[in-house]
Amino acid sequence: MAIAGGSGSTVWDFEGNEYLDFSSQLVNVNIGHQHPKVIAAIQAQAALLATVAPAHANEMRAWAAELVLSHAPASFEKVFFTNGGADANENAIRMARLVTGRDKVISHYRSYHGNTGAAIVATGDWRRMPNEYARGHVHAFGPYLYRSEFWAETAEQECERALRHLERVIQSEGPETIAALLLETIPGTAGVLVPPAGYLRGVRALADHYGILLILDEVMAGFGRTGEWLALDAFDVVPDLITFAKGVNSGYVPAGGVIINSQIAHFFDERVFPGGLTYSGHPLAAASIVATLTAMDDEGVIENARTIGADVLGPGLGVLAQKHDVIGEVRGTGVFWAVELVSDRASREPVDAGTMAKVKSELLGRGLLPFTSENRIHVVPPAVVTPAEAARGLAIIDDALAEIA
Amino acid sequence: MAIAGGSGSTVWDFEGNEYLDFSSQLVNVNIGHQHPKVIAAIQAQAALLATVAPAHANEMRAWAAELVLSHAPASFEKVFFTNGGADANENAIRMARLVTGRDKVISHYRSYHGNTGAAIVATGDWRRMPNEYARGHVHAFGPYLYRSEFWAETAEQECERALRHLERVIQSEGPETIAALLLETIPGTAGVLVPPAGYLRGVRALADHYGILLILDEVMAGFGRTGEWLALDAFDVVPDLITFAKGVNSGYVPAGGVIINSQIAHFFDERVFPGGLTYSGHPLAAASIVATLTAMDDEGVIENARTIGADVLGPGLGVLAQKHDVIGEVRGTGVFWAVELVSDRASREPVDAGTMAKVKSELLGRGLLPFTSENRIHVVPPAVVTPAEAARGLAIIDDALAEIA
Repeated sequence: MAIAGGSGSTVWDFEGNEYLDFSSQLVNVNIGHQHPKVIAAIQAQAALLATVAPAHANEMRAWAAELVLSHAPASFEKVFFTNGGADANENAIRMARLVTGRDKVISHYRSYHGNTGAAIVATGDWRRMPNEYARGHVHAFGPYLYRSEFWAETAEQECERALRHLERVIQSEGPETIAALLLETIPGTAGVLVPPAGYLRGVRALADHYGILLILDEVMAGFGRTGEWLALDAFDVVPDLITFAKGVNSGYVPAGGVIINSQIAHFFDERVFPGGLTYSGHPLAAASIVATLTAMDDEGVIENARTIGADVLGPGLGVLAQKHDVIGEVRGTGVFWAVELVSDRASREPVDAGTMAKVKSELLGRGLLPFTSENRIHVVPPAVVTPAEAARGLAIIDDALAEIA
Repeated sequence: MAIAGGSGSTVWDFEGNEYLDFSSQLVNVNIGHQHPKVIAAIQAQAALLATVAPAHANEMRAWAAELVLSHAPASFEKVFFTNGGADANENAIRMARLVTGRDKVISHYRSYHGNTGAAIVATGDWRRMPNEYARGHVHAFGPYLYRSEFWAETAEQECERALRHLERVIQSEGPETIAALLLETIPGTAGVLVPPAGYLRGVRALADHYGILLILDEVMAGFGRTGEWLALDAFDVVPDLITFAKGVNSGYVPAGGVIINSQIAHFFDERVFPGGLTYSGHPLAAASIVATLTAMDDEGVIENARTIGADVLGPGLGVLAQKHDVIGEVRGTGVFWAVELVSDRASREPVDAGTMAKVKSELLGRGLLPFTSENRIHVVPPAVVTPAEAARGLAIIDDALAEIA
């Protein structure tokens, strides 16, 4: 598919066919396509100064850092900019290792942390396996009640057992060898696995107890996707490092970064940080971050995402789940939902790839650009989606599922 | 230093002080600051479509790939776009490992390959050491006659012995365990180490003999820096993979990539490549690549770099070397030169950090923005630098060296 243009939650191809973008591309165009203020800011910065080496100060970078920090917990003090989410995780891992003097990083099997050296090996999914050239990565199972690894029957049990499992992995690896726990606040690509209440608080307690740093990966979940500025805002948890990309500027210019708490920031006051990238804090990227965060604030984009989730997508997907036997589970928040398709509700057997291809083509044929992964439709429109557009998307999903039934 | 704006080879700060940019920022602004055609192309693409997922076709990406390929040897067929040079090397290493089914990558101690997981461990310099979490990296010494690791006295001897050393490392590591040799065509950050005639041809022969792939890193040397489209054009060598970033669009938008030969491209025709980044082939980046390469072609930027090197910088630096005892060696090509400063010409002892700080401040005070590394001034202006500007820069270096004498 060749996309010729877009506006808000709509894209069109070169034949003029319009699609409701329920993918936000790679779950990143939170502010919608071609937001006029962000486009204007990019154009203005390009006219002023497109590029500068990271060693030289530039106003936009400072301003972007300030705005990013304004949405982080009070204990955070600095931002290290990168080119995307993968190198944000690379640099957060590097910081954790240098600060602790330890080696190992524990992440979840159901996770995605990016596709460079260490980030892809921290990733849990299959893309890790042909790429295991970074050392020091250990994986544990996370909470996922619908397909529990812990024989749990309630959310409370799943939470308690997942924490017990994580603690046993920490103990068995040796706490004194572990630099960090690296988790997506809500694992995204792995299936929008909203953690049960108390899980992240429990992880924080484990990190504190064993003197391990906690990195929350907010690359996909952050900056509006969940109906919060950061997904962690809903979970009463304060990590040591936060990584971001995608939603921070809706990918209009490649950008990402690490938000660093005061303690870690001060560690590097008198030590050289052996990182840095030619395009760190790129003026064009910084200008797009400033314009995006400002527009999201001015236009109530976060509140919109929250309302759409609570009033339209949540209830609407619930209705579809009652109607279509192929839906095994629906879960999510804001504009961040997964619809899990199963061939049998009792066994929870995922539908096969052929069925998913059919679903995808039915959705496309009805004018909806979907994001699918394994046996799931991820319902992830831009955070600016209107109630009418969200309802239209749900109706298309309804029709497509009826067609394949 | 805070840079307020720039044009061509000049930048200025917020007090209106102008500087001749003899750094090209991080040796990447080859087309100069704020080239009007590149700025216009970025603005136009932003107005049309700023971002799209890599899975969707976009015209600019296809056009950018075509233009990049037009400057590569005929055996090259595809381009994989990344966000910068580090992830370009990550992905080239990944391809080599997947194609060969082997693990190790040999690179040079005097080298810089970027700052993510595998790229920083492939790097030879000190930044590798706190980051050695990627496995499978082996380092060998490369040719550098001025500080020979091989007790050589002539360029011919240095070349022959460096090749012998590399072959012994290959044999001792086990050729069947080695996926790739990864070399900068001309090591840049390590000191503009122009290899002796025949070295790269010899490396190619070793790679062929032992069935190892050859990756040439053209991130800094490529796209105009050496007075050639690619630095390899001057060395009669055809690698299997080429990595690029920096000069390809002068860093106006973060971008990089891997140029892939037909054989490797076809390997992935029927296999999933377990890579990919949200911003791969980003429309804004692609538009800036198309505009940059087109303008460089139309305006004879490559020829200018070559002429400046042959007629102004080469001879001019030669004169300075005769005049100033502190200069131990001058080497380079095009707009890619290093001036090595020594406290003693006989022992070749590098000047100390204090002297370098003084040199830097004398240059800045005279209106030249320098790139320095260890005991070296890297003379690396934009490839659009005029003969008058190049001569002015040399005069400033002359004065600064006289001052510190």
